[in-house]
Amino acid sequence: MKKKLNFWFDFASTYSYPTAMKIGEMAYEEGVELTWNAFLLGPVFHNQGMNDTPCNLFPQKGAYTWRAIERICDNEALAFNKPTIFPQNGLMAARICCSYSNEPWLPAFVREIYHANFVKDQDISQKEVIIQSLENLGLKSGEVIEKATSQEGKDRLRQNTDKAIELGIFGAPTFIVKDELFWGNDRLDTAFEWCFKR
Amino acid sequence: MKKKLNFWFDFASTYSYPTAMKIGEMAYEEGVELTWNAFLLGPVFHNQGMNDTPCNLFPQKGAYTWRAIERICDNEALAFNKPTIFPQNGLMAARICCSYSNEPWLPAFVREIYHANFVKDQDISQKEVIIQSLENLGLKSGEVIEKATSQEGKDRLRQNTDKAIELGIFGAPTFIVKDELFWGNDRLDTAFEWCFKR
Repeated sequence: MKKKLNFWFDFASTYSYPTAMKIGEMAYEEGVELTWNAFLLGPVFHNQGMNDTPCNLFPQKGAYTWRAIERICDNEALAFNKPTIFPQNGLMAARICCSYSNEPWLPAFVREIYHANFVKDQDISQKEVIIQSLENLGLKSGEVIEKATSQEGKDRLRQNTDKAIELGIFGAPTFIVKDELFWGNDRLDTAFEWCFKR
Repeated sequence: MKKKLNFWFDFASTYSYPTAMKIGEMAYEEGVELTWNAFLLGPVFHNQGMNDTPCNLFPQKGAYTWRAIERICDNEALAFNKPTIFPQNGLMAARICCSYSNEPWLPAFVREIYHANFVKDQDISQKEVIIQSLENLGLKSGEVIEKATSQEGKDRLRQNTDKAIELGIFGAPTFIVKDELFWGNDRLDTAFEWCFKR
């Protein structure tokens, strides 16, 4: 039976960045079927009684996180520049992911947006940034954005976020393998191992 | 130059349990000098505006943590029983650690207390549990407890907890290597690697 791993991510999430850049290749090498599930952390944090990301609410944790991300990226030879805006608004990008979740270009689009956020320090809420990311992949940006921002497109992201909360997701990245939940970039290897656990 | 790793732990902390059970042996094998620093998470959380552990304040995170600990212990063939009391009051045990931090028996005492908490489900705030743990190691419990609960003993723990906050510690376990802070049982290998980084 095909091994499956569900990857849940938010475009503002610091630790989701290194995960997003490598998880596709890892899944390919392991022969694991990957699903890419974008959601919004904002409502998830709000549901836990927080009105902002823990990195901003708890400054010591925030300071640690920025240094930890820097070390992780350095270790993986991954470019990183601390974004001027944090957390960024990934609403439009997440809507695109939900409307095109099965398209072969989706993983590359996800990486484009993370690169725009955590390397180029662009404002990913801006339509021009989204258009550029889509056009870098040779896609018709107008068509994609129209579908993603339609009422159905908006509903898809809302449903995905509701589903994340139902599944017990409280942060990102999160991996789900056979009903087991794994939280954090640090648990990525463990999540892959779980795919092959008997 | 001797490689050094500072291990900061709290006896109530779930993820500190698997770390505490293996870090001594890992340090010995790697030739790293380990310091055992007990502190109290309560004041650290309070300093971040939280009046309880995040596991209790954020139920989804709490549910995840208990399952994650179960998986980690299972993977390491480490016994685990969810404690009836959580978080436990490790005040007296932590005071002993601060008063006897350089004693050769200290690591074994730390493991005794974690075992009492996370395996035997004993109330580690109780003097009888502490006495038993000390006597299991052949120590004169009366003498040890007297020193640890004297005014100097109390002050040592308070100073250690204040120092933890000053160092930017916001959770446990935390590892400090050459001014770099690593948070979480998941980062233990990375902390050891950092000892040998040039």
